[in-house]
Amino acid sequence: MMKKISVAEATLNGNERKYVLDCLDSTWISSSGKYITEFEAAFAKYCDVKHAISTNNGTTALHLALVGLDLKPGDEVIVPTVTYIATANAVRYCGATPVLVDCVPGTLNICPDSVEKAITSKTKGIIPVHLYGHPANVPAINHIAAKHGLWVLEDAAEAHGAEINGIKVGALSDCATFSFFGNKIITTGEGGMITTNNDQLAERMKLYRSQGMDPNRRYWFPVVGYNYRMTNIQAAIGLAQFENIEEAIAKRDQIKARYKENLARLSSDILFADETPGYRSVCWMFNIFLSKGFAYERDRVRDALETAGIETRPVFHPMHTLPPYKEERTFKVADEWCQRGINLPTHLMLTEQQIDFVCKTLVEATR
Amino acid sequence: MMKKISVAEATLNGNERKYVLDCLDSTWISSSGKYITEFEAAFAKYCDVKHAISTNNGTTALHLALVGLDLKPGDEVIVPTVTYIATANAVRYCGATPVLVDCVPGTLNICPDSVEKAITSKTKGIIPVHLYGHPANVPAINHIAAKHGLWVLEDAAEAHGAEINGIKVGALSDCATFSFFGNKIITTGEGGMITTNNDQLAERMKLYRSQGMDPNRRYWFPVVGYNYRMTNIQAAIGLAQFENIEEAIAKRDQIKARYKENLARLSSDILFADETPGYRSVCWMFNIFLSKGFAYERDRVRDALETAGIETRPVFHPMHTLPPYKEERTFKVADEWCQRGINLPTHLMLTEQQIDFVCKTLVEATR
Ligand SMILES: Cc1ncc(COP(=O)(O)O)c(CN[C@H]2[C@H](O)[C@H](O)[C@@H](OP(=O)(O)OP(=O)(O)OC[C@H]3O[C@@H](n4cnc5c(=O)[nH]c(N)nc54)[C@H](O)[C@@H]3O)O[C@@H]2C)c1O
Ligand SMILES: Cc1ncc(COP(=O)(O)O)c(CN[C@H]2[C@H](O)[C@H](O)[C@@H](OP(=O)(O)OP(=O)(O)OC[C@H]3O[C@@H](n4cnc5c(=O)[nH]c(N)nc54)[C@H](O)[C@@H]3O)O[C@@H]2C)c1O
Repeated sequence: MMKKISVAEATLNGNERKYVLDCLDSTWISSSGKYITEFEAAFAKYCDVKHAISTNNGTTALHLALVGLDLKPGDEVIVPTVTYIATANAVRYCGATPVLVDCVPGTLNICPDSVEKAITSKTKGIIPVHLYGHPANVPAINHIAAKHGLWVLEDAAEAHGAEINGIKVGALSDCATFSFFGNKIITTGEGGMITTNNDQLAERMKLYRSQGMDPNRRYWFPVVGYNYRMTNIQAAIGLAQFENIEEAIAKRDQIKARYKENLARLSSDILFADETPGYRSVCWMFNIFLSKGFAYERDRVRDALETAGIETRPVFHPMHTLPPYKEERTFKVADEWCQRGINLPTHLMLTEQQIDFVCKTLVEATR
Repeated sequence: MMKKISVAEATLNGNERKYVLDCLDSTWISSSGKYITEFEAAFAKYCDVKHAISTNNGTTALHLALVGLDLKPGDEVIVPTVTYIATANAVRYCGATPVLVDCVPGTLNICPDSVEKAITSKTKGIIPVHLYGHPANVPAINHIAAKHGLWVLEDAAEAHGAEINGIKVGALSDCATFSFFGNKIITTGEGGMITTNNDQLAERMKLYRSQGMDPNRRYWFPVVGYNYRMTNIQAAIGLAQFENIEEAIAKRDQIKARYKENLARLSSDILFADETPGYRSVCWMFNIFLSKGFAYERDRVRDALETAGIETRPVFHPMHTLPPYKEERTFKVADEWCQRGINLPTHLMLTEQQIDFVCKTLVEATR
């Protein structure tokens, strides 16, 4: 029987084993321990920001950032309709309202023109998401935010190492969040990180991350906080993964190049995102779009790939179609593009033969 | 220089290393993997309940249980004023109000008489906490709850393995939560668990634990959920710890016995909790109370111990004294007892000599 081709896989061929054993031998396995500080410091340096604050996943990172930014019930936050649902859920956790806007074709990233139109007197901030590794147009978003006195929080869960004009995502706006789930560019199993240059915001987030406890008085809690701490073992894995991030990104570039080359040769019915000049995308998930057809067509193609042993993911359902955020109005680009998008297998264990097989199977299924 | 005596320590001398390496070798380090199911099954069997649902810590376990129980803004939940703040915070996360009640002397556990008086038309449930390893009087609480149509959620964060009349905590009421932080009777670094016999509640909690995603439709989210999943590595450690839980509890019993014997011999000014007949306490933290004096006296004694290299913790500040839950009314027992309580070092690496040294230093400091 043929081995199944996963859509994502974790690769642990660096110092993961060594560092994790060091945690176990030292008995420091909870959220105290040297790997947490080391991983945070390495990540901050990489993004060229003053603070990196680890959390137990990318969803809690988003929530903690919004708590840090003092988001309150009644406030509004502008969020792209195309994203993983956690982006909007975090706004809801604060009792605030995510206001959905449309995306641009190809990358499916937030559309700056739509943002400007969605601003009201209740708007407090904007969350551009760097979807599938493509940097969102944060410079344009920052410009709008500055005009209206809003904050900008990048959701960089899917885009570790991406850049705009030489500046890494995570350093493009007031604050950014990352995920280290098992399918991400670097992983800690579950895990998250927040980056910022704002000292006061960093302090607030640290307070709220650890139950709101006064650092100078045991079991004295001035505020209602959370337990969103990363463990030393998660950080140990993260640090080891991080040591190989450049190789991981380079390997993913090769995967993308081979997918593009194959598909361009085999079919004119399969589209993929253009790269924006000055933008450095990373290939978290290689994404294709069927040039025509509807959701059922996409699902038929995914089924054919599944039958051939190839795992895929659909592009996210736009949030305005999901029960918790249901809206009747149309989002032109999202409605048109999302139902035609498929994430193809993208991970470091993928061989050239497997990529070629995925392309062949895909193209046959679309005929 | 003398080695510092910690108030708690993690002991990893079972299969922790073996199981964690198995996770790393298999590359299953995220919240998918066999150790999660195995740890949950072992824990459910131990408590003799149908379902055990792991989470990333004890605080998220509490929140997830309350979400499962459908707690809503405007609802009230009765909570003892003496507990770790997470018990009340979880109620607040749901937008509901924790209504604080007084405790009984010694164990500082919730006072059933006070519960009955605190019930209003908005009350939805009661959260007894098994503080420092002593089972709270859940039979009395269940009786009150049944009369008024309320649910009961045990916060068993500190009491793995404790029993009432042969029934383990975790199986005494509708639902219970546990913590596996690094200082707990068994640890996963950070981690939590929910136990219940209610199938429907278990299903709901599983749905909300994993972002609210429809298990049969990828990226389709009928509800706003959370990412509260435990990782395979945390579960691997938990399973290994769990294999030694009986030895851990027995060793803690010995520690308690030696503390009691020493202190009874050396001083009549130091009190500790009586055990209730039929109740099986576990010694998570050995707790003493100065027979007289105020908070500053307790703090002076803790400082003297600290100077001698002995780490301690104060008994929790009653929540009605903390800024987020501040109330002017008095809670007679809590106000009197909490300012006089100290947690003494309690962990598996503690030697008899160290226990004797702690007792001697403590008694000298109280003279
Ligand atoms: C924009 C944005 N914002 C916020 C978040 C929230 O971050 P976080 O998940 O809370 O950290 C996210 C995270 N979204 C992820 C989530 O992390 C989510 O859990 C994930 O959904 P999924 O596709 O349902 O995930 P899965 O099926 O469990 O795993 C995807 C693939 O990765 C593989 N994999 C996962 N963990 C492991 C592992 O530990 N080992 C190996 N070998 N493979 C693993 C699986 O086998 C699959 O092939 O993918 C989503 C796109 C985000 O994208
Ligand atoms: C009734 C109740 N309800 C809910 C919760 C919430 O559960 P959770 O913490 O979210 O899982 C809790 C949990 N409360 C705990 C929390 O887990 C809390 O974090 C903890 O507070 P702390 O005393 O400030 O914790 P600490 O100083 O970080 O650790 C206590 C001791 O344990 C040791 N220790 C902690 N982690 C490790 C470790 O990984 N290795 C070793 N060797 N020692 C460790 C430290 O060195 C200390 O000596 O103790 C509190 C009483 C609870 O008690």
